[in-house]
Amino acid sequence: MSYPDKVTVREVGMRDGLQAIATIVSTDHKRQWIGEAHAAGQREIEVGSFVPPRLLPQMADTAEVLAYAKTLPGLFASVLVPNLKGAERAIEGGADLMVLPVSASEAHSRANLRKSTDEVVAELGRIRAARDAAGSRTLIEGGVGTAFGCTLQGEVKPSEVLRVMQGLLDAGADRVSIADTVGYADPASVSRLFEQALRIAGDRFWCGHFHDTRGLALANIHAAMQLGVARFDASLAGIGGCPHAPGASGNASTEDLVFMLEAMGIDTGIDIEALLRLRERIAGWIAGEQTHGALWRAGLPKGFGRATSAVAA
Amino acid sequence: MSYPDKVTVREVGMRDGLQAIATIVSTDHKRQWIGEAHAAGQREIEVGSFVPPRLLPQMADTAEVLAYAKTLPGLFASVLVPNLKGAERAIEGGADLMVLPVSASEAHSRANLRKSTDEVVAELGRIRAARDAAGSRTLIEGGVGTAFGCTLQGEVKPSEVLRVMQGLLDAGADRVSIADTVGYADPASVSRLFEQALRIAGDRFWCGHFHDTRGLALANIHAAMQLGVARFDASLAGIGGCPHAPGASGNASTEDLVFMLEAMGIDTGIDIEALLRLRERIAGWIAGEQTHGALWRAGLPKGFGRATSAVAA
Repeated sequence: MSYPDKVTVREVGMRDGLQAIATIVSTDHKRQWIGEAHAAGQREIEVGSFVPPRLLPQMADTAEVLAYAKTLPGLFASVLVPNLKGAERAIEGGADLMVLPVSASEAHSRANLRKSTDEVVAELGRIRAARDAAGSRTLIEGGVGTAFGCTLQGEVKPSEVLRVMQGLLDAGADRVSIADTVGYADPASVSRLFEQALRIAGDRFWCGHFHDTRGLALANIHAAMQLGVARFDASLAGIGGCPHAPGASGNASTEDLVFMLEAMGIDTGIDIEALLRLRERIAGWIAGEQTHGALWRAGLPKGFGRATSAVAA
Repeated sequence: MSYPDKVTVREVGMRDGLQAIATIVSTDHKRQWIGEAHAAGQREIEVGSFVPPRLLPQMADTAEVLAYAKTLPGLFASVLVPNLKGAERAIEGGADLMVLPVSASEAHSRANLRKSTDEVVAELGRIRAARDAAGSRTLIEGGVGTAFGCTLQGEVKPSEVLRVMQGLLDAGADRVSIADTVGYADPASVSRLFEQALRIAGDRFWCGHFHDTRGLALANIHAAMQLGVARFDASLAGIGGCPHAPGASGNASTEDLVFMLEAMGIDTGIDIEALLRLRERIAGWIAGEQTHGALWRAGLPKGFGRATSAVAA
């Protein structure tokens, strides 16, 4: 059994988490979040999404938040973009990376974006052309979502996920990722799909994204790590969720994931105690909203961090 | 990556779960629990523990509950026994198996039982002698607890866990198990310890028991399964917990574990929808107590069970 020596936990709570939450978090609090996450050792943060503010008021300040993130040394700031228009704003704002989500489920793609899967793949080609024409260095990630099934159509075939992924690579994606958007994955299906995805994408395979809707996020991450995947999305306090499953749990929680990794002796560069303090502050900002995770209640094991090295430089 | 074809989920909610809960569940409800769990396909249930009723009133009816369990065809009923006196009652009641818990942490053993670890190991020898003298067929399991650390002394050395396990085998245990009593394990430490334990105990290695205190129970079970371990303890609704960490989550929840296994194509023999109905009834009996797990909120994936076979005969 072998694991990566280092794993990057990409914080997506500010995007995937907050977009699912009604309480508007102020720009000032978002800046504090980024600053403290950076101080705790987090180096990759998805800071927001360039969607129309009337659709998602929570994300209206993404340009400002991104501008602040860019002031912090060594921080790799990404944003979500739903289309070319969003991508132009990401390029303008100098994001390090932009993620275009593409649903492998045709039904989900049409319900969510009113576009077919292949139309979104084609949009990535236009984004690539715009990025190159602008001389921008913003990386483009194609994120294949509903990769293990979908609440609308049920089964999603692995062959379809891989076809979409190949399409994204062909259209010019610098990176591709796989997302279990609704918490349908299990460790065996993760092993099977990720093994094939790695064969197709090689070094361009970037990240695994697992929702914890049915409690399997960490087991699924464990399975993916055994194939060498070394970057995972997670949300502080596990915020985020699926609009099709009210009350369901959201993302893998950053603090539980970092705990698992550091306990395993895998370096995350993150100070878990600082992370737990930040979690507490964020929980205060979104009081009344559902949060998740187990570590914050139980605390760290007695003596934790003496044997393993859990503190960032 | 290989997994067992079949995994047995041993229900310990009636013992490890209820012992942590103040609300007394009536004998009649316990009978219903066993009957419905059996109807849902569960074939191994820890029905209670033979401890002094004044210490644990919740377990006062264990003899009656065991007698009922014995009327159900194919049900393998176990009980916990803290000492020879409890073992004599288990033998008298005709339990299929009795579990003697032994703490690998000296500090935990003394705090919990006022006995050293080695004194408890010696007690297993006396239990074996009594069982053999009675001509009883009740199997004896030595369960090594606090195997990944302890809330009192912190670190517990793997070498000490293995020494205790060897001691139990030498004293006459038919089966041995490992328990992460306080949720300190991670997938890497599980792999390391279980690999060595399997080497020592061979076919006499019986079961893994993982508390979900820090959210890692299913990831830890995943790691143990990869070594071929095919029996795990779990509690419906995840009830149970550690008296040293109030508010902390309890056991691996049976329904989430069965979901993970069936989703992976591993046969549990359990009808997960029947299990979820039973969970709901139990949650009603212990209303106001903390329950856990994710599946009961989110429900099964759309179309689940059509591809995999999730229904018991």
